[in-house]
Amino acid sequence: MLYFEDLEIGSTQSYGSYPVTREEVMQFASDYDPQPFHLDDDAAAATHFGRLSASGWHTCAMTMRMMVDNMKVNKQAGLGSPGVDQLRWKKPVYPGDTLRVETTLLEKRRSQSRRDMGIFKSRGQTFNQHDEVVLEMISNGLIRVRDPDAPISG
Amino acid sequence: MLYFEDLEIGSTQSYGSYPVTREEVMQFASDYDPQPFHLDDDAAAATHFGRLSASGWHTCAMTMRMMVDNMKVNKQAGLGSPGVDQLRWKKPVYPGDTLRVETTLLEKRRSQSRRDMGIFKSRGQTFNQHDEVVLEMISNGLIRVRDPDAPISG
Repeated sequence: MLYFEDLEIGSTQSYGSYPVTREEVMQFASDYDPQPFHLDDDAAAATHFGRLSASGWHTCAMTMRMMVDNMKVNKQAGLGSPGVDQLRWKKPVYPGDTLRVETTLLEKRRSQSRRDMGIFKSRGQTFNQHDEVVLEMISNGLIRVRDPDAPISG
Repeated sequence: MLYFEDLEIGSTQSYGSYPVTREEVMQFASDYDPQPFHLDDDAAAATHFGRLSASGWHTCAMTMRMMVDNMKVNKQAGLGSPGVDQLRWKKPVYPGDTLRVETTLLEKRRSQSRRDMGIFKSRGQTFNQHDEVVLEMISNGLIRVRDPDAPISG
C-alpha cells in the first residue's frame, strides 16, 4: 500500500485501455448530459464536433475509472480529492475510441490541519488511440500518511 | 433561443432539484469510481467522509444534468465547453441530499478564429438542502453568435 511518504515528485504512470462504445456514450448523455450533439447523429453533424461525441463529464468519469483501477493494482491509501485546478477537454471523444491515461506527480505536502493526511497535485492526461490528448487535468488528491507522528516540515 | 448577444454579464440563474439516491450513488461509483468509500458503508465510516458519499464526478454529472435541463427551458444555442478553470468539491454529497444550482455569468467574448462562436465564463455553485455549497466550478462555455457578420470588438 502506497502512502504519502511513498509518493515521488516527478514520477509518472501510464495505464488503462478503455473502449468507448456508442451505447455507453448515449447512456451517459441520456442520464447526465442530454444535449442533442451527444445523443443525435444529425444534430452532432451540424456542430464543430462533426459527429456524435461523448459528454466531457463522461470522459472525466471514464478517466476516473482507469485511475481507480490503477490504484487497485498500485494500491494507494487515497482519501478522495478536494478538486481540480484546471480541466481541459482538448479533443472530442468519439464512439470507437480507446482511451488511456498518463499521470505525473507535480507536488506533495502534509496537511497542516490533519496530521494523518497528505495532499498532492498531479497532471493527468487522457489520450485516444491516435495519441492525441483528449482531456488534461491538474488535480489535487488526498492520501493517508503512514506515520502521522512524524514532524511536518516546511 | 438565447445566443451570445443575449448573455448578460453579472446575470444569475437559480434552478434544479436533484434528489440523490443511494441506488444512483452506488451505480455511478460502481461504473466509474469504485473506491471503497463510495461503495461500502463501513469503509466510508472509517474515512473523513463519515458515511457513504457520492463520487465527485457524479456530483459534476448531476450538476450538468440540472444545467442541461435548465438550458432546455431557457433555450441556449450552446456548443459545449473547452474546460473548467477551477473545480472544488467543498462538501461530501450524501444519499438523501437534494441538489440545486446557481450560476453567474462572469465574462463573454467573441471567438477570434470562429466568427459564429462566442465564449463565456461562468461560476456554477451546487448546493445541498442545507444551502451548503457542495461543488463550485468556474467553467467556460461555447455558444452560437446570432449575427456572425457583426464586427468583433476588442
